[in-house]
Amino acid sequence: MIYITRRATFSASHRLFNPELSEEENKKLFDKCAGPNGHGHNYVLEVTVAGEPGKKTGYVLDLKELKRILSREILEKVDHKHLNHDVDFLRGVIPTAENIAVAFWKILAPVIPSGRLHAIRLQETENNTVEYRGEIE
Amino acid sequence: MIYITRRATFSASHRLFNPELSEEENKKLFDKCAGPNGHGHNYVLEVTVAGEPGKKTGYVLDLKELKRILSREILEKVDHKHLNHDVDFLRGVIPTAENIAVAFWKILAPVIPSGRLHAIRLQETENNTVEYRGEIE
Amino acid sequence: MIYITRRATFSASHRLFNPELSEEENKKLFDKCAGPNGHGHNYVLEVTVAGEPGKKTGYVLDLKELKRILSREILEKVDHKHLNHDVDFLRGVIPTAENIAVAFWKILAPVIPSGRLHAIRLQETENNTVEYRGEIE
Amino acid sequence: MIYITRRATFSASHRLFNPELSEEENKKLFDKCAGPNGHGHNYVLEVTVAGEPGKKTGYVLDLKELKRILSREILEKVDHKHLNHDVDFLRGVIPTAENIAVAFWKILAPVIPSGRLHAIRLQETENNTVEYRGEIE
Amino acid sequence: MIYITRRATFSASHRLFNPELSEEENKKLFDKCAGPNGHGHNYVLEVTVAGEPGKKTGYVLDLKELKRILSREILEKVDHKHLNHDVDFLRGVIPTAENIAVAFWKILAPVIPSGRLHAIRLQETENNTVEYRGEIE
Amino acid sequence: MIYITRRATFSASHRLFNPELSEEENKKLFDKCAGPNGHGHNYVLEVTVAGEPGKKTGYVLDLKELKRILSREILEKVDHKHLNHDVDFLRGVIPTAENIAVAFWKILAPVIPSGRLHAIRLQETENNTVEYRGEIE
Repeated sequence: MIYITRRATFSASHRLFNPELSEEENKKLFDKCAGPNGHGHNYVLEVTVAGEPGKKTGYVLDLKELKRILSREILEKVDHKHLNHDVDFLRGVIPTAENIAVAFWKILAPVIPSGRLHAIRLQETENNTVEYRGEIE
Repeated sequence: MIYITRRATFSASHRLFNPELSEEENKKLFDKCAGPNGHGHNYVLEVTVAGEPGKKTGYVLDLKELKRILSREILEKVDHKHLNHDVDFLRGVIPTAENIAVAFWKILAPVIPSGRLHAIRLQETENNTVEYRGEIE
Repeated sequence: MIYITRRATFSASHRLFNPELSEEENKKLFDKCAGPNGHGHNYVLEVTVAGEPGKKTGYVLDLKELKRILSREILEKVDHKHLNHDVDFLRGVIPTAENIAVAFWKILAPVIPSGRLHAIRLQETENNTVEYRGEIE
Repeated sequence: MIYITRRATFSASHRLFNPELSEEENKKLFDKCAGPNGHGHNYVLEVTVAGEPGKKTGYVLDLKELKRILSREILEKVDHKHLNHDVDFLRGVIPTAENIAVAFWKILAPVIPSGRLHAIRLQETENNTVEYRGEIE
Repeated sequence: MIYITRRATFSASHRLFNPELSEEENKKLFDKCAGPNGHGHNYVLEVTVAGEPGKKTGYVLDLKELKRILSREILEKVDHKHLNHDVDFLRGVIPTAENIAVAFWKILAPVIPSGRLHAIRLQETENNTVEYRGEIE
Repeated sequence: MIYITRRATFSASHRLFNPELSEEENKKLFDKCAGPNGHGHNYVLEVTVAGEPGKKTGYVLDLKELKRILSREILEKVDHKHLNHDVDFLRGVIPTAENIAVAFWKILAPVIPSGRLHAIRLQETENNTVEYRGEIE
């Protein structure tokens, strides 16, 4: 078993806000992340696929193909977007890094053509990172 | 002459949009940066002060003091904010990295307590950076 | 299960020296790390907590709270200190990165308010890093 | 159990090419990586050893010793070399990052003097990384 | 005057070898960089353009346009190539980082559409970098 | 004119303390940097030499030679040392980054074999850096 990882970046804005709670409760829970006009990040996404390298290619999965998949499935939908307003698959989701990582997993797991999705790592700032490895780990 | 540099980061959103132009012209000029809901970045700010180290301290300027100045004058006003809407000193400014750097210079140059402001470097993404060194360079 | 990681840095000095051994044996075991006046590092600490994101917040644990915990429990006690002399919880411990990581674990594991401590990663130099994940892994 | 990691870098060239296939098939499989004159990378190698810190030293394994082992067993053989032509232990291997990582594992696993080899991580570019943890993980 | 910088990376191989000298002299001058099969690097290129931000755009030069220029003029010609054999504009040049930077300057200086080329910075490894700022600096 | 830069790192401890002042004044001037047992850093040193690339080599100065010079003249004397106690050329100097950079300049300027020393850049932490370019700049 080998783990291959492709890194990509995107720039987006978001606001942490739970519409079921009052402004005040949101302010208390999310502090400066709840500002009404939102703020943004350069997210760093790392996607890890686990598998056996093929005899013919020596690849688990051609990382250039994984790059194309990430561009098509994720980056085109989130880069230079507002995660609360512009992204269909995040509607109704509080866009914390945790929730975004799970949403990315649901999209990517079924479309990995070789090997299986092992981990989604999402860095929100140089000091804050989350990782999701699917339901059963 | 010694050049000392303090690095700080902040997360903000912005939209590149010139209100004197049509939506279409904005779209053509700024492309995905003109999206109506904005997007965001983890900006990296580097502020360089030039001066002679003091005999008593060996410091041009205590970098812990420069840190406090940056927090008070800049970071508290832009971190976790929308640069088009939430920042007084950017009103009426298209918030390109170039324009933000010049705006930061105007604020910081008069309040450097020792030495003189030499450069403002602002990294918008890992691939895009601007630097301003004042009017006469 | 989601893994969230907070990164922090601190600057400290240490000396690798086992007081039960002779100067010569220490010199042989620890080489330049045994110098009598010590040396220092910019340590990079990464603390990972595992848990389920809350429905209300989308957080496993607010990373701003984890930041406060790290500051209070760890950074205030080790930053700008000599690890052999100035840190109560390291008394009698040879301050290798391995031993420091275990000491940090013992402090942090009981005070994580949500989720459970999963890993302590401590980078001593850009080339040397250790990780501890508790007794049962 | 503690995991210690030593990082090292080397600069090498390679060509992805399966001699059992035609030029055209190689071109199709490996695209620009199949160019006849090869290309190159600054590889970043991270080797992780798992073990218990010794009572006497507080070390799982002296990272300075791991550094010497990596230099002698790996770096002297691959740094500033062409991986397809100059490296005995890669003869007959398509030098994908996956295959190189497995080859390094076979060399290093038997010569770790304390603890056991846990992972070989090989970064080929800032966006592409592979990791191998041995047969049974 | 504002300085804007675009960063890009490419992976290439090269061999340091002066054909007017003997093998032995080359070996003495270039040491391991003269190996007959070459070796390679992930080069990091930083291109800086100096100019005044436009009133209409707030840009010195749209960095997305600079990105396209770098791709077309430089990256397509050197990425995944052997710099001694595959690159027309490097024929007859010993491909040291110094010489490559000057060659890039000659190509880019005439095609910068706004502002003027200020610096070419080329990182060959994480420890080795060169910078060229044109003839008159 | 081309500027070539060699990067190197060293780990050292220091204490900011002016022996001509009282403990209290030192505490006020240097705060946590004045702790009696000192603290430490992983310093990153970048040395830039300016010159013309030689016709025969394409080098301003072989960076492998600059590496050897830095090791012999600087790193062997400061790595894993206490800068206040163990370094002859820093005796009587308050070891701020500013003062260390000037001390390194004095040692290196006369021994650069080709080109001339242009800048000494010393990073003390990821946020604090100083640069010295000699008396006349």
